[in-house]
Amino acid sequence: MNKKNLEDLLQAVRHHEISVEAAAGQLEKLPFSDLGFAKIDNHRAIRVGYPEVIYGEGKTIDQVVEIVRHMDQNGDNVLLTRCSEAMAQAVLTDCPKACYNKIGRIVSLTNTLLEETEDYIAIVAAGTSDLPVVEEAYETARMLGNKAIKVTDVGVAGIHRLFANLDLIRGAKVIIVVAGMEGALASVIGGLVDKPIIAVPTSVGYGANLGGVATLLAMLNSCASGISVVNIDNGFGAAYNASMINKL
Amino acid sequence: MNKKNLEDLLQAVRHHEISVEAAAGQLEKLPFSDLGFAKIDNHRAIRVGYPEVIYGEGKTIDQVVEIVRHMDQNGDNVLLTRCSEAMAQAVLTDCPKACYNKIGRIVSLTNTLLEETEDYIAIVAAGTSDLPVVEEAYETARMLGNKAIKVTDVGVAGIHRLFANLDLIRGAKVIIVVAGMEGALASVIGGLVDKPIIAVPTSVGYGANLGGVATLLAMLNSCASGISVVNIDNGFGAAYNASMINKL
Amino acid sequence: MNKKNLEDLLQAVRHHEISVEAAAGQLEKLPFSDLGFAKIDNHRAIRVGYPEVIYGEGKTIDQVVEIVRHMDQNGDNVLLTRCSEAMAQAVLTDCPKACYNKIGRIVSLTNTLLEETEDYIAIVAAGTSDLPVVEEAYETARMLGNKAIKVTDVGVAGIHRLFANLDLIRGAKVIIVVAGMEGALASVIGGLVDKPIIAVPTSVGYGANLGGVATLLAMLNSCASGISVVNIDNGFGAAYNASMINKL
Amino acid sequence: MNKKNLEDLLQAVRHHEISVEAAAGQLEKLPFSDLGFAKIDNHRAIRVGYPEVIYGEGKTIDQVVEIVRHMDQNGDNVLLTRCSEAMAQAVLTDCPKACYNKIGRIVSLTNTLLEETEDYIAIVAAGTSDLPVVEEAYETARMLGNKAIKVTDVGVAGIHRLFANLDLIRGAKVIIVVAGMEGALASVIGGLVDKPIIAVPTSVGYGANLGGVATLLAMLNSCASGISVVNIDNGFGAAYNASMINKL
Amino acid sequence: MNKKNLEDLLQAVRHHEISVEAAAGQLEKLPFSDLGFAKIDNHRAIRVGYPEVIYGEGKTIDQVVEIVRHMDQNGDNVLLTRCSEAMAQAVLTDCPKACYNKIGRIVSLTNTLLEETEDYIAIVAAGTSDLPVVEEAYETARMLGNKAIKVTDVGVAGIHRLFANLDLIRGAKVIIVVAGMEGALASVIGGLVDKPIIAVPTSVGYGANLGGVATLLAMLNSCASGISVVNIDNGFGAAYNASMINKL
Amino acid sequence: MNKKNLEDLLQAVRHHEISVEAAAGQLEKLPFSDLGFAKIDNHRAIRVGYPEVIYGEGKTIDQVVEIVRHMDQNGDNVLLTRCSEAMAQAVLTDCPKACYNKIGRIVSLTNTLLEETEDYIAIVAAGTSDLPVVEEAYETARMLGNKAIKVTDVGVAGIHRLFANLDLIRGAKVIIVVAGMEGALASVIGGLVDKPIIAVPTSVGYGANLGGVATLLAMLNSCASGISVVNIDNGFGAAYNASMINKL
Amino acid sequence: MNKKNLEDLLQAVRHHEISVEAAAGQLEKLPFSDLGFAKIDNHRAIRVGYPEVIYGEGKTIDQVVEIVRHMDQNGDNVLLTRCSEAMAQAVLTDCPKACYNKIGRIVSLTNTLLEETEDYIAIVAAGTSDLPVVEEAYETARMLGNKAIKVTDVGVAGIHRLFANLDLIRGAKVIIVVAGMEGALASVIGGLVDKPIIAVPTSVGYGANLGGVATLLAMLNSCASGISVVNIDNGFGAAYNASMINKL
Amino acid sequence: MNKKNLEDLLQAVRHHEISVEAAAGQLEKLPFSDLGFAKIDNHRAIRVGYPEVIYGEGKTIDQVVEIVRHMDQNGDNVLLTRCSEAMAQAVLTDCPKACYNKIGRIVSLTNTLLEETEDYIAIVAAGTSDLPVVEEAYETARMLGNKAIKVTDVGVAGIHRLFANLDLIRGAKVIIVVAGMEGALASVIGGLVDKPIIAVPTSVGYGANLGGVATLLAMLNSCASGISVVNIDNGFGAAYNASMINKL
Repeated sequence: MNKKNLEDLLQAVRHHEISVEAAAGQLEKLPFSDLGFAKIDNHRAIRVGYPEVIYGEGKTIDQVVEIVRHMDQNGDNVLLTRCSEAMAQAVLTDCPKACYNKIGRIVSLTNTLLEETEDYIAIVAAGTSDLPVVEEAYETARMLGNKAIKVTDVGVAGIHRLFANLDLIRGAKVIIVVAGMEGALASVIGGLVDKPIIAVPTSVGYGANLGGVATLLAMLNSCASGISVVNIDNGFGAAYNASMINKL
Repeated sequence: MNKKNLEDLLQAVRHHEISVEAAAGQLEKLPFSDLGFAKIDNHRAIRVGYPEVIYGEGKTIDQVVEIVRHMDQNGDNVLLTRCSEAMAQAVLTDCPKACYNKIGRIVSLTNTLLEETEDYIAIVAAGTSDLPVVEEAYETARMLGNKAIKVTDVGVAGIHRLFANLDLIRGAKVIIVVAGMEGALASVIGGLVDKPIIAVPTSVGYGANLGGVATLLAMLNSCASGISVVNIDNGFGAAYNASMINKL
Repeated sequence: MNKKNLEDLLQAVRHHEISVEAAAGQLEKLPFSDLGFAKIDNHRAIRVGYPEVIYGEGKTIDQVVEIVRHMDQNGDNVLLTRCSEAMAQAVLTDCPKACYNKIGRIVSLTNTLLEETEDYIAIVAAGTSDLPVVEEAYETARMLGNKAIKVTDVGVAGIHRLFANLDLIRGAKVIIVVAGMEGALASVIGGLVDKPIIAVPTSVGYGANLGGVATLLAMLNSCASGISVVNIDNGFGAAYNASMINKL
Repeated sequence: MNKKNLEDLLQAVRHHEISVEAAAGQLEKLPFSDLGFAKIDNHRAIRVGYPEVIYGEGKTIDQVVEIVRHMDQNGDNVLLTRCSEAMAQAVLTDCPKACYNKIGRIVSLTNTLLEETEDYIAIVAAGTSDLPVVEEAYETARMLGNKAIKVTDVGVAGIHRLFANLDLIRGAKVIIVVAGMEGALASVIGGLVDKPIIAVPTSVGYGANLGGVATLLAMLNSCASGISVVNIDNGFGAAYNASMINKL
Repeated sequence: MNKKNLEDLLQAVRHHEISVEAAAGQLEKLPFSDLGFAKIDNHRAIRVGYPEVIYGEGKTIDQVVEIVRHMDQNGDNVLLTRCSEAMAQAVLTDCPKACYNKIGRIVSLTNTLLEETEDYIAIVAAGTSDLPVVEEAYETARMLGNKAIKVTDVGVAGIHRLFANLDLIRGAKVIIVVAGMEGALASVIGGLVDKPIIAVPTSVGYGANLGGVATLLAMLNSCASGISVVNIDNGFGAAYNASMINKL
Repeated sequence: MNKKNLEDLLQAVRHHEISVEAAAGQLEKLPFSDLGFAKIDNHRAIRVGYPEVIYGEGKTIDQVVEIVRHMDQNGDNVLLTRCSEAMAQAVLTDCPKACYNKIGRIVSLTNTLLEETEDYIAIVAAGTSDLPVVEEAYETARMLGNKAIKVTDVGVAGIHRLFANLDLIRGAKVIIVVAGMEGALASVIGGLVDKPIIAVPTSVGYGANLGGVATLLAMLNSCASGISVVNIDNGFGAAYNASMINKL
Repeated sequence: MNKKNLEDLLQAVRHHEISVEAAAGQLEKLPFSDLGFAKIDNHRAIRVGYPEVIYGEGKTIDQVVEIVRHMDQNGDNVLLTRCSEAMAQAVLTDCPKACYNKIGRIVSLTNTLLEETEDYIAIVAAGTSDLPVVEEAYETARMLGNKAIKVTDVGVAGIHRLFANLDLIRGAKVIIVVAGMEGALASVIGGLVDKPIIAVPTSVGYGANLGGVATLLAMLNSCASGISVVNIDNGFGAAYNASMINKL
Repeated sequence: MNKKNLEDLLQAVRHHEISVEAAAGQLEKLPFSDLGFAKIDNHRAIRVGYPEVIYGEGKTIDQVVEIVRHMDQNGDNVLLTRCSEAMAQAVLTDCPKACYNKIGRIVSLTNTLLEETEDYIAIVAAGTSDLPVVEEAYETARMLGNKAIKVTDVGVAGIHRLFANLDLIRGAKVIIVVAGMEGALASVIGGLVDKPIIAVPTSVGYGANLGGVATLLAMLNSCASGISVVNIDNGFGAAYNASMINKL
């Protein structure tokens, strides 16, 4: 309810087109709705085509199938992350137009095609073992309407491969760097490129990697400016964040 | 603004006693005020005599003196925690009716006497080194209008002293247990007394005490039911919580 | 043995109805029994209908079936927590009047109906993945004779849903807040409601959640007063504690 | 050196306008410069007015005075972070046009005025103790040519104050959230605003805050999307990152 | 080789009963054997009947069966710890006189009966879930020739049960306290009994127990004197240590 | 009150030498005293000459001077640990017969000479930096009436020095091993000597020593049997424990 | 391309032996190739016979089989680490000349025999449970062309076995020490041998071993000089490093 | 005592030049000395000119002055690490030919000049704040007779500076990489250079650097092969280790 609606309602009161009680009833509910239900709840809802996001882990297959079916019937786009193969099979059986990215463990379902951005997000990764996180980030970025490119296997142990792809990376509006182990890739790119970088530590590694905590700490301590960090393996969060920046 | 006020305003609109624009202006601000400014902000404010609380650490002496003076002029009661001796001296020079509890590092200033509860809070401590936390909790409990008693030096290494005070402890409505080292006192009292217990780990100890983290973990893992825990050395928080329970 | 018994015994000595040796024998054992067996042991035992609590994890199915059967024959109420589905099936086969709450992994068996309190405990949870802990807390609260309500899926990412339920939460005598991830819900409710809050961190989350430790630390560091914390996923402990407060 | 320059040089060789030795000398340095000295080194250098940044901690006062003097003579803008009062005094004595922000412990020296952006960065903070980090971020953002606003003391313990400033926050292109303790402010704003958020955990707190690690973990585990995190107390890094985004 | 042997050898040299080269050969090896092979290696070997100890975890069943068979043929006593049920079955099939303690996951095989000590070791445990560690300690103590008693289920949540067994505990020469959760039992016994205590933290617990680390830290920080600690779940180590003390 | 006292009282009742009420009054208090005040409280009190122990850290100099004076007037022996030089000076000025061990930061005051044991405790240390802990242990052991020897600077980096002292170490009844850094000395001695070992990790070291936690963990994980561990730098606790064993 | 080549090219330009465009084309590529593609990328590639290394964990069996086949067709030597039995079977079926070391979980495939060094690497291990890491290091060392010896089961709990093998260990050019638990073996050897030592902590142990972190910390804190450390269980890394040193 | 000496002694016995008792006496002591006193103890002692090393921290100035004077009188070379300015002044006053490296906090005293190696150690550092560790390593390397070079301020945030020095680094026989923050420099050099690398994490950084632990973990998890790690800030240890390798 905007100011115009409010004044219309008061005019209606003045002209006896609505009773005082009915107007009071409408206004009583006002605070809450005006707090901006639409704005607060689900930024997704206010832009046509933004997908509803479901986090698959910790839900049963039946629950997920039902949620997806319901959203599909609403004509929503859907992004289902952390989705096991068994869960994906059940969802795709029920809703054949959905697609499963097995490596990224992510199901996407498009009912309304979003227009793709001209600017692009570069998703850069150190090793092949980081691919699940790369794919999760890639599918998320795409479903949010972004052009996105993947530059993989450019870890600092063979730094010339990174240099060979530097122009492509520099051309992006925002860069997601996915790396495990010591996460040095984020710092190196941060020293070479003048764009905002979102670093995603992965749980790839062994021994004192501590499930990705070592990588996380390294990235937070990067000597390069312009780097911020999301949670371990959180490809979705990085892409969501990057999409916000890419669309500015 | 309650329903009555709202209907009065609408009647005023209908009867042209207020312009549509003025009414809209009033109503536009409504959502926020109706969200309950008074209720949300400062539970303290809505009950006469409840003290304003200032956390002294990290503030300059000048800042604190000014804040206290301002509150005193408002006729507020004031509780100033984590207050160094130098800070206390400055505050008491400026406002001589304030009192300083040196061990508890806490200044209290009473402008309106709160009625004391009949039920009491028992503050039980293991060792003499826990006294700063005990005193912080005690002063807080008192300033919030609670009857409170202290039972100190009853650590489990001399468990008979605890038994000698058991009736006093059992008589309380809620119990605060302050302990460092292995924090066993909370579990032992939890096994002997049928009252809610708020455990405060202290940073007393050395070696692998890790600044109170060892005690904190021990208390969280207590085998006795009915124990909840607040942050290390947080005597204020324990007493605030206990006061809420004591006044139910 | 109360004072009356003691004087009777001494009279018996005086009147030669019992030998000095026999009396000395009885008195020698006195200290211990008089330390208050009934009071110390099992607060549960002294209030009719309080359930016996069994922690299922780490026990064999056979052991648990036997314990439940024995308690049932005593006419006890029983609460069996952390109970797997296989264990629950075995218990219910042996004792068909028991009920299994599958989500909360908890079996309850009522032989004596406890009168329900008029005041209620509000159990508030951030996300659907916190439901197992919510259910454990709910069943525990109910078996201890409390009226309890559940308010779920009101995480701070969609804060308007919390506001919609605020009156219900404010009406409670004590509030249990169950949350994973960053646990912000506890602080937000602590800033809005003037009631004691028991916060339960859950192990929901991934990456640097560290099995709930991140949430636990966040809750302990809450900027809102009136919050105390129990162990990770400890719905039972929170409800036991809340029940003590609710019945004051 | 681009292709045109290269061909010009070779033509000069062919036409004997430059000796082979001189050309070889130029080309020998080529690989390195062409690797993009200007691009790699100091993004700051390639945009007029970008400040040189000095990290004051761990350097002697003499070293810092000399560095600033040297840069000033080059006509550079300078940003000196983590600068103690004694160090600031020495720098300002030597270079009187420099300014010291005492709370933010940061010295700024402007030789070339940067044009201010139209879009702005909102720097939002929970408590007054977070001000040093706020000021560090603010000065950094300003020196990098950004319009920036500060919204402080809007912690979740008094959430209505946050709502009162929501429009101002929503108007920003990118938001920096500075918070200590449980860091819930980042999640709450993340749930209310549809803009990229850079969260800065501060080391404000006590007990199990662990020097800001508790806050850091909480922010990384935020249930709200669109949040990325920088290192504890790293106001400079957050502002540098935000400036990159604000200028896209 | 003792002094007598040495002089004999030298006399043999003098009397040409052995060549200088042969004697030098013997003496060359002397340093090592005289460093006390018997003393250094396997204290077990120098006292008849001391068992050989095998740590089962991380070995294959075949390896273990062969080792036990070989030791049995040597007439050794054997103690096989951390032995799964499958491993135990294979060992007992091959060597039927061996015994398996399923709860303690330990196999014992006695070829030479050790004389039992008159003094005894008391093994005291808080909860039923600590039984595996209790049994491992008990079997170890027995195989090393000690009289040992078990006092279980005397956790501090029901402290009267501990008092009922106090004389039995006080009668021991050395006490092993096995406890999980907050490990308070060690401190309480330490405050009541004047005997050396070896505390064994167990990994029983959940949430912030951290696999026994919380208990370990609590025990190390005990306020009672006379307590030393072994590794988490290390019933064997505690009993080995206690046996050394019991036999002094 | 022992059995004799009890029968005397009952005889007095029978012979009307005391009223039933008076006897009941005495007996009512019995449980507590009979719980064994003497036994429970202060094992020290029941053996003539055992010192009272004061932990100096966290107490004011005035408090400590007064406590020592009071104990001295009672004719007690006193052991004052973690005593700074300033504190020691004040104590010795007030009570000149006390002695200060500056390295061990410990004051001892002997009013009653304890008879020395024949068996001895060996205190073995790796480096000269471990001396404060060695001296604390040594003074404690001596004040508790033990013969004790020190073998220092025998770290594993120069293992031949350890071998040169092996007989002396093997001759002890119980061994205290004090070591920082990687704490390997405990394991090496554990492999060479067949006596109970109490290991004391010290906070000597730098970098990833983590204030002694690295050493503590290493000692708990020792591959040698017969080792138990006390808290970091806890020389007093190790000696108290060793004294219990040495006097068996 | 060295200076001589460069001048030759320029002379060719001057003498019209090459067109300006062609020369520019060559020079454009110069920076990168001169950065030393061959040198940067794959040190392995520039020495005939050096194996390509594949880290098996986190790859699918199909992926690995294909990679090995492709390398085999190139005539490469291959080292496949962290290879499960199922993966090994598939690889060996496809490429029968490959060999599987089951304990070390490593597949090696030799197409070009490397000449063995005369100097050797000694791989010394404390216990039989460290064998998988020993074997990984051994196979790696061998495939890189090193002579290597294994000295196992020489833990400090039976230190005489270590002395018996000291000459063999001292004869090596570089020593790898593999140990779990408290890792004392590294320090002891460091004190006895004057050669560079690479220590590999293993995750062997239980309780407070923390998956090898305790061992890692102990080794980093070693009191012996000349020791450096690689990641937990990283036999491959230790051998790669040792090979570099052995071939100097 | 070598074989020759032994046979001489036996011949002397045979020829009655020494009594059996005297020979037995000599031989009894043999094992220990023959274990190789010279070899075991002090590798330094057996090579002329190797410095004696003193760790200054935790020692008093008087102790250190006396130790240095004593060694100087023996004609030893001395290296005194972790030496404060006050300590250095006292040492240099007493022994004027000693030199103090203030940044490296290290005193060196040369009585016998060691011949310098032809191969050199490269000490590479990321930032100026790492200089104390660089200097400690440099002085140590020099005093052990190594040629050493320093390449500083080549952090990955300005990677072109590293490339400009690559040939110098590649020319070394062994490389020490000193870095704080995320420690990426070690990985980057590891990917560019085919020499053994010893990485030294420094405690430079703030926030979640955790006193160098973040850097340590990053270096241990490096994706580049050929890197081993020493303790945080341990420049001495790195240089000692590098010297061993450089002299092979």
